[in-house]
Amino acid sequence: MFGIFDSGVGGLSVVRLLQKRLPQAGFIYLGDTAHFPYGEKSREVIGNYAIRNTQFLIDKGARSIIIACHTASALAVNNLRRYFRNIKIYDIITPAIREIISAEYQKIGVIGTRATINSSVYKKKLKPYKVKVISHACPLLVSLIEEGWVDKPETESILQEYLKPLKKEKIEALVLSCTHYSLIEPKIRTIMGPKVRLIDPAKLLMEEIVAEGENHDLKKSSKKEKNVYVTDFLSRFEQLGQLFLGEKIKVKKAKTIQNV
Amino acid sequence: MFGIFDSGVGGLSVVRLLQKRLPQAGFIYLGDTAHFPYGEKSREVIGNYAIRNTQFLIDKGARSIIIACHTASALAVNNLRRYFRNIKIYDIITPAIREIISAEYQKIGVIGTRATINSSVYKKKLKPYKVKVISHACPLLVSLIEEGWVDKPETESILQEYLKPLKKEKIEALVLSCTHYSLIEPKIRTIMGPKVRLIDPAKLLMEEIVAEGENHDLKKSSKKEKNVYVTDFLSRFEQLGQLFLGEKIKVKKAKTIQNV
Repeated sequence: MFGIFDSGVGGLSVVRLLQKRLPQAGFIYLGDTAHFPYGEKSREVIGNYAIRNTQFLIDKGARSIIIACHTASALAVNNLRRYFRNIKIYDIITPAIREIISAEYQKIGVIGTRATINSSVYKKKLKPYKVKVISHACPLLVSLIEEGWVDKPETESILQEYLKPLKKEKIEALVLSCTHYSLIEPKIRTIMGPKVRLIDPAKLLMEEIVAEGENHDLKKSSKKEKNVYVTDFLSRFEQLGQLFLGEKIKVKKAKTIQNV
Repeated sequence: MFGIFDSGVGGLSVVRLLQKRLPQAGFIYLGDTAHFPYGEKSREVIGNYAIRNTQFLIDKGARSIIIACHTASALAVNNLRRYFRNIKIYDIITPAIREIISAEYQKIGVIGTRATINSSVYKKKLKPYKVKVISHACPLLVSLIEEGWVDKPETESILQEYLKPLKKEKIEALVLSCTHYSLIEPKIRTIMGPKVRLIDPAKLLMEEIVAEGENHDLKKSSKKEKNVYVTDFLSRFEQLGQLFLGEKIKVKKAKTIQNV
């Protein structure tokens, strides 16, 4: 069974893809709403939250972990793999890196939270392959999307401003390195024009998981559990969750986690 | 010595007023950056954070607590007073309520985070006085202010939209029930027009503390400690802090708080 975590609601878009591609797979999702958002926090604190989230999912029966959060993938995955040596841990950034290398791009763009961009994870991993990475933090986008401001002119205008430096650079591909950005992909497409490929890491991650199709975890899994937990219960989560998951959800409070 | 806490950097505007009015007073400030923002979280979780913040400040020597955060004042003050019976706890909302009652307003507006507005704290406390309260959550403002977007046309336009329902209602006064809003007070003034009084609860709170001038705590305090702690160390905090405090700050990590 898969254990999937994110800082909040955005990772449910990964669950949506998982259910589409592997409907037989059970999952437990944890949204760390008591500490949302991760995008402006430090490596140390995000590392602690990631360990605690993973432990919760393992205790609930997960045998493979998916880090659906880009910020946690950028800042906590190495630490997490050292801490949980016997658990398969998928992160959402590695498949995008592989795709960029395999497509032999020479100049790409990356947008994400401030913490993801400041981690320079793409720059560091792509340096040996001589890929030029132009990255830009877009800290207002998550709030605008969660507030339902997607179609307002203010959001369009803010997005224009964020993407301006990337447009200038004539990049070949743009990585949408935050789960929320898939909800504004058409707007990013319009601004960037048809020549720039938009890379949605969630889709590449799912291809990787499907390609490992003979994943014994999937076959062994007789339990068809599908549960969504949060560290802080908010009625807004269920409402927003529907947007990312594409269907109604019922959410449970993760009682074993102390938010102190 | 005063112990002051907030979810992040905004409460430093209260420290600024404190230093101006009571320069002899020592203080310890705690910004709970590991859990910022509080504005979208639940009463239960904010209650836990508030207890832990207060305990930290008491352990560091504070004898009076100031809740500089409106969301924590709205959701956690009763709980906090029950938990720490022997400590004087000032919250930032009560002085504003007193002022509205004493000015005999009949119709006021309140803007704040979603959690503050959903708590209906102003409506509940003003009901016996037959004051009509028109409240409106402005969840994007904190992010826009922290991102330095104060003077951009997008912020102006978002603010216009938030204040529209309040303008229609012909309110006599508008409570700026979030520490961040003082930084955009001139913009709110322009939109609301000269007839609406803008109430900044931080100023009223400081008047209340000064009026209790014979506060034995102040006289006894020989220690002139002035320390700013955070639960997650971020270089941005010092940069943003300057905006709220009006001077340079050096920040320490609150080591005794475990962010799990």
